[in-house]
Parts: sequence; C-alpha cells; structure tokens
Amino acid sequence: MALDEFELIARYFRTARLERAGEASATVLGIGDDAAVLQPAAGQQLVVSTDTLVEGVHFPKEGPAAELGYRALAVAVSDLAAMAASPLGFTLALTLPQATPCWLQAFSSGLADAARDAGINLIGGDTTRGPLNIGVTVLGQVPAGQALTRSGARPGDLLCVGGNLGDGAAGLDVVLGNQLPVGLPMAAQDYLYQRFWRPMPQLALGQRLRGVASAGLDVSDGLLADAAHIASASGVRLLINGPQLPMSDALRSWSERQRLDWMLRGGDDYVLLFTLPRAARRWLEQWRAAGLAVSVIGEVQGGKGVQLDLGLGPQNVDGPAGYQHFRSTDD
Amino acid sequence: MALDEFELIARYFRTARLERAGEASATVLGIGDDAAVLQPAAGQQLVVSTDTLVEGVHFPKEGPAAELGYRALAVAVSDLAAMAASPLGFTLALTLPQATPCWLQAFSSGLADAARDAGINLIGGDTTRGPLNIGVTVLGQVPAGQALTRSGARPGDLLCVGGNLGDGAAGLDVVLGNQLPVGLPMAAQDYLYQRFWRPMPQLALGQRLRGVASAGLDVSDGLLADAAHIASASGVRLLINGPQLPMSDALRSWSERQRLDWMLRGGDDYVLLFTLPRAARRWLEQWRAAGLAVSVIGEVQGGKGVQLDLGLGPQNVDGPAGYQHFRSTDD
Repeated sequence: MALDEFELIARYFRTARLERAGEASATVLGIGDDAAVLQPAAGQQLVVSTDTLVEGVHFPKEGPAAELGYRALAVAVSDLAAMAASPLGFTLALTLPQATPCWLQAFSSGLADAARDAGINLIGGDTTRGPLNIGVTVLGQVPAGQALTRSGARPGDLLCVGGNLGDGAAGLDVVLGNQLPVGLPMAAQDYLYQRFWRPMPQLALGQRLRGVASAGLDVSDGLLADAAHIASASGVRLLINGPQLPMSDALRSWSERQRLDWMLRGGDDYVLLFTLPRAARRWLEQWRAAGLAVSVIGEVQGGKGVQLDLGLGPQNVDGPAGYQHFRSTDD
Repeated sequence: MALDEFELIARYFRTARLERAGEASATVLGIGDDAAVLQPAAGQQLVVSTDTLVEGVHFPKEGPAAELGYRALAVAVSDLAAMAASPLGFTLALTLPQATPCWLQAFSSGLADAARDAGINLIGGDTTRGPLNIGVTVLGQVPAGQALTRSGARPGDLLCVGGNLGDGAAGLDVVLGNQLPVGLPMAAQDYLYQRFWRPMPQLALGQRLRGVASAGLDVSDGLLADAAHIASASGVRLLINGPQLPMSDALRSWSERQRLDWMLRGGDDYVLLFTLPRAARRWLEQWRAAGLAVSVIGEVQGGKGVQLDLGLGPQNVDGPAGYQHFRSTDD
C-alpha cells in the first residue's frame, strides 16, 4: 500500500508539469535524487524563504484543494517579490492524512497554476502521512547587493504600495461564508474569493524596484504591522495618509469603518509596500505606464513607529496592529 | 499572547547561536527579513533538499526534544553529503502544538549541536501552531558538474559503503524500549540510542567523492532499497556480498538473522553508499588512512536490480526491501 500511495503522489506532481513551469530553467538536476541541483546565473545572490500553511491557522478547515495548492505557492513566491528576486525553483514538503486521488489531483493543479503564473519550477519535495501541513521553500536570485531589504528607508522617502489593500481580509470573509452586505454584486464576491485564495505575487514590480527603492516587503500581516517592520528595521517613522490608501471597488458595499480596518489591519494582501527616495519619484509614472498600480500613501520621517493621518492630523498607532499567528481563522 | 510566544521562539533560536554555526558564513542577510540572502562561491552549483519529520512516522511519539532537534537537521544534512556538497545554510519550518519553554530550549539546543557538528547556519524559518511537524530545507554548494548523483554507476565499478550498517534500526529498537538481548552491554545500548537520534552525516567523505565516485546516495531506506535506487537510476545491476557488510560490535548480541535483516533492510543509517571505478581503487587506502571507515561490499554488473550473495551464490532480491513511509514506527 505504501509504495502505491507514493507512486500516486509522484504521478500527480509529474503530470501537472510542475517541473517545467519556469521559462528558462536553472534546474541542473530535479526530482528523484537525494537533492536538487541548481545553477544560479553568474553574479547573482541566492534568496531563500520558507512558508508553512496549516489548516485552521492559515486557511479555513477543509479548504478547496486546488485553492490551497495555489495559495501555498503564491504566498511563498510573494517573499521573493518582496526581495526584488527572480524565481529559481521551489520545494514542497507535503504532510497529508491520506493520499486521496481526487484531492491530490486538485491540489497539484492549483499548485501548477501558481507555478506557471510565477514562472517557477518544482525541484524537489517530501511527502509524509500526518495532519495536513503544506511547507513551501522558494529559491530565487538577485544581482549581488540588490536584494530589497526592510532596513534602507530614510527620512524624506515616499511610502508606496503596489496595489489595493483590504481585499485579502474581505476575501476571507467571503471564503468563511460570513454575512455579506446586502447588494454585494456576485462579481465582487468572485473577485474577493479569488483575492484570498489566489494572491498575485508582485514579481514584476519587485524586480523594477532593484537599485531604486530604499526598503520594501510584502503586506501579509496588515499594512500597519508591516509598516512597523520597515520603521523598526530602518530606524525611522512612517507616516501613512489614510485618504490615499488604494481600495478596490469590491469593498464599497461595506461600511467605511470596516473597509478602513481591513485596509490597515487585514493582511493577506501580498502587495509590495516600499519606500522610494524622492529623487526616484519619476519612476512612478513609468511603472504606471507599464500597468503597475503603484500609489504613494505616505512618507518616511525621522523618529520611530508608525503614524496614521485620517484627516485630523497624525496619530500614533499602538496596540495589536495586524494578523497574529497562533490564532485560528475561525476564532 | 501570540506575540509573546513568537518572541519566546525567536529568543531560543537566537541564543542557541544557530545563525553562526558554520565556520565561514555565506549568509549575506539572515533571519528577520522577507527572505534570507546567500552568496554561493564562484563556480559552484546549488544543492537543495527538503525533509519533513512527523511524530509517529519518523520518530516515536513524545521523543526527547533535544534528540528531535538533532535528528531533524542531521537527516537533512545527510542529503548534502550524499550529493558531495558543502553546507551553505538551512531553514526550519516548525509547526508545534504549543510553545513550551522547556521543549523549545531542549529542541533548539539539539538543533544547535547538529548545526555545529555539520558547520551549517540557520538562515530562516517559520513557526506555526499545529500538530508537531518539523520541516528542514538544507542548502549546499558543489563545484559545477561535480554533484554525486545516483545515475553514473557502470559495470565493473566497486560498490562501497562509508560506515556500519544496521545501527539505525537496532537503535530504534533501543529507543522504542523493545526487549533487548540478555547481556547487551549498557555501552552498546547508549551507542545505539545515539546512532538512532544523532545520525552523523558523512560530509567529509562525500566531498572526497567529488570527481572520483561514479554514483552515490545515503542509506536511509535500507541497503537493499537504496541499492535498488542506484541500480534503477544507472541502468545496472548491483551485487552485494553479504559477508562483507560492515557491522558495529554493538550488534553482536542479536541473532545473526536479526542483524542481517537490519543491515539489509533497516534504514536510518545515513552512511554513504557509492560506486567507485576500479581505476580509482587506490583512493580507498587514502580515505582509510584519513580515518574514514570505507568498505567494499560488492560490485556493479550489467543487468538490472539487486542481487545478494550470502555465500551460496547470487540471489535476486525481490519484494518489500526497506523502510516505507506512511507507516507508523510503532506499528
């Protein structure tokens, strides 16, 4: 029985063509040996990040398998985008209670969609029986010295965001089947459902930020919490201008209070938050002309912490600001 | 509560000095950003492997935390040894039911022991609440084209092993508290307990095999099963000479039948199994002179599969040959 199950799993991951999702492959040796071998390009540094998705913590229990597959990889790839890296490959550590063909087929097809969208190849993995646990390690490369870190923001820089805020949190409400506003269009529900399950890592934007942005990360914990990460690592204060926060039309059916809470604290948006020296301001127009939805939402100041201006002057932001781990999504 | 738990975990992993276990660090940017940044040396290829340890599958339930920490990393590093790679760094994806200071301190100290022994730095990780699941991804480097794969064995090559066989399986018996032979010395029990919980990845041997051995891997599934992997990947037959299999003195208290079963099918030994062209035979003496316990245990022939000669001529080896996943260790 054991062998059959493994063959089954190997079959699903092979037929999903996960090993050839990237355009130009850096894979010298892929799945099937003790380890994978990759050839990074000359002059590049290696970027590595590991993410774990656990049922009931990072996604609702019994989430649809295809969406789990997509989300697990997309969330990890977002960390490569946040470092201004290009994808090299990923490994999958999959622990699952049983090898159900139907579940595996759906999971691997969602994973393959995410791999194709990001242009990243599956290079290795490990499958084990146990409570559902999805571990993804992504590898990328970036020209030496050009990784985008959290620590380079300087007073005077502009604070920018690469897309709409709040969609991830609103999407979770839709996914959980919570009570939705009367009159919420079906198209908006669909859009938000996708925004939760199929985040879009901003690889193209991240790569354009190389050598231009002074600091950056992806918004996964919520805008305020992630802004605090940059403020702390850079030793600066970030001032966020509330009225400038970009929001999708899909959020308009909710109260202003709810929308603002999601935009500030929701998390799961996976858009890039970055700081831009004013001298590099001209890039904003070029990025917009290239179809990238970048918005200026504040500025970097001397000091520490995060301030929020909702139109009544800057207020310090204190207390629980974002998503906390060790919390069940259905608490 | 959530934040405190995270700070606690970060504290244990920092005080264990896991970030500076390697001698010369390739880490450009370690823990604390969206991803780690590494600088592989020029002319090197990257080697990547992921391993998951699940309670009740890879180790007995309620295993001692320090030993779990050691074993989780050592088993993963063994894959680097099997590829002839040098360690660059590792990430830890730790899912645990609760953040108990006592457990975390013990786990991180065992992990730190393994990191020091292997000379590998912790470069990143992710900690989540959920059923215990330990995921380790190791990164290494090897001069371009010199990774040791499973597919290069040629008829006429010698089949060699880098250390004793059967200790891992006997060690599991000791760890599980199974009935032990009357008169088994306490020193032998201690030795075998260590051999299960603290495997010794053969990094030094692996690196000496670069450009010399024709194929290789680490014995994790059992000698017969792992020999079959080389035979299959290389398109050859491996003949194993039973009387030549190296065994530690600690196994002498068990019956010959039990010892042989463990040496052939036991797994968990994490010694290297490799094939050596006869023209490279002179290296064996040099390695032995350097303190490496290499043994010739057979040869590579034309054909397919694995044959075993226990003194009565070669017999084909069929059927379940090694450790199977999706099996509880206490079945």
